[in-house]
Amino acid sequence: MEKWFVEKYSPDYGLTAKVTKSLYQEESQYQKLEIIETPEFGRVMLLDGVIMVTDKDEWVYHEMLAHPAMFTHPNPEKVLIIGGGDGGTLREVCNHESVKKAVLCEIDEMVITGSKKYFPEIAKGFDSPKAEVVVGDGIKYIKESNEHFDVILIDSTDPVGPAEGLFHKDFYQMCHDRLADDGILALQCESPYISDLQPVIKNVYVSLNTIFPIVKPYLAAIHTYQAGLWCFMLASKKYMPKAEFSSNRYEQMKNQFKFYNDEVQQACFVLPNFVKRIIE
Amino acid sequence: MEKWFVEKYSPDYGLTAKVTKSLYQEESQYQKLEIIETPEFGRVMLLDGVIMVTDKDEWVYHEMLAHPAMFTHPNPEKVLIIGGGDGGTLREVCNHESVKKAVLCEIDEMVITGSKKYFPEIAKGFDSPKAEVVVGDGIKYIKESNEHFDVILIDSTDPVGPAEGLFHKDFYQMCHDRLADDGILALQCESPYISDLQPVIKNVYVSLNTIFPIVKPYLAAIHTYQAGLWCFMLASKKYMPKAEFSSNRYEQMKNQFKFYNDEVQQACFVLPNFVKRIIE
Repeated sequence: MEKWFVEKYSPDYGLTAKVTKSLYQEESQYQKLEIIETPEFGRVMLLDGVIMVTDKDEWVYHEMLAHPAMFTHPNPEKVLIIGGGDGGTLREVCNHESVKKAVLCEIDEMVITGSKKYFPEIAKGFDSPKAEVVVGDGIKYIKESNEHFDVILIDSTDPVGPAEGLFHKDFYQMCHDRLADDGILALQCESPYISDLQPVIKNVYVSLNTIFPIVKPYLAAIHTYQAGLWCFMLASKKYMPKAEFSSNRYEQMKNQFKFYNDEVQQACFVLPNFVKRIIE
Repeated sequence: MEKWFVEKYSPDYGLTAKVTKSLYQEESQYQKLEIIETPEFGRVMLLDGVIMVTDKDEWVYHEMLAHPAMFTHPNPEKVLIIGGGDGGTLREVCNHESVKKAVLCEIDEMVITGSKKYFPEIAKGFDSPKAEVVVGDGIKYIKESNEHFDVILIDSTDPVGPAEGLFHKDFYQMCHDRLADDGILALQCESPYISDLQPVIKNVYVSLNTIFPIVKPYLAAIHTYQAGLWCFMLASKKYMPKAEFSSNRYEQMKNQFKFYNDEVQQACFVLPNFVKRIIE
């Protein structure tokens, strides 16, 4: 009997993939983690039935969450990642020579453990001497911290369940307060092609605009995420993403990217009309 | 019993969608046409089981096949569309005031008939007095024609079955010969995320480069096409797509686009590293 996995993007449609092996299944107090082996995507990590990362295309999401903010900032030394327990965003951040310290605050230790065991290429960010891992609630961490960061990246799941609070204005205000005077926040913000998610994008955009002087949505085509097109937001206190770009630092790193490059840094901020209309 | 449709993108994965109604099913000498009603995408047209157009997102493909070439050319008066029997590309082309004549050459009359009946919004290009419809083989049409066109758009199905010849170098040479001295060719060129399609993209790029002085691949995120990211190619005898842009003509038309805009005209030609590596 063939086994097929289905991720329903709505009650009415979804992605389906053949499964050759179920590698891991565990439930924490927050969510259900499954790791499966598929012929198409290699290993796939699912949280509550939703694809988080796959071997085949994890680099698109991780590069595109991290680097537009990291290269807009001229010299990011201290970085905070909220969520991102698979370690992929941490890996991208630690690859920047300017970074001295990268704190990752993940609520669910099970995700870190599972990723280290089954996704060593993604989890290798955890091996960096710059990495500091906190297992705990990101909101609580932000509230209680006195540190200031140059870049904060919100690498969350969808705005239901454990990540719900990470899509609230109050949380963005706390992030703002924990950023240096020239700090930058970037976050994942769901798919603009999914009607139910369009209000999320609009709300995040409006909320960030009440807090930050510069807010720029950007896009990347991610094969295994809903509808294949993903929205991110960059919110900045000082640096303008299309104008500021650390080209010297980019030149040193450019051969390691599979998706990101200096032209993508500009083009990703261009929005098709239907996305402009969502945030209008 | 619920009915679900599956389009397999490979033997190992695909898109699945609930079907509320089967509206039309017919087989011609070339292919099998099905039109279904779905809650997620509205009406969907399938050729040999592959999604061609959906009510929900047909505008992305049609705008992005037509307008990058149409706005790179300063004054496209005569346009030829090979394939495109649903009429969507024809609709976009006829909306340009500069166009005096738009010939559409579709091999399979069944597609035209089906689209006129079930996709009136897409098929409305057929109502334009500028439209001239030829039912026949595009290769034969190009071979026997003496006309010269300002823009030729190849709006084909995938490179198997009836469209196979439309991905050959000989055919591109014929298109070149039927273009005016400053003419532009644009064509759809499959998904760069699908490993099996990457050699197609490479071959088309290499072939076009032996014939045209300017060849520029470009991308658009199309929800209901394989892997959500689609490649196109623009091949030009004279005008450079990122440098030339008919901004006056754009200003007159800009409110009618759902996806395309003047910034997209620039950004779509930016390729992520993995796509650059496919065509290297």
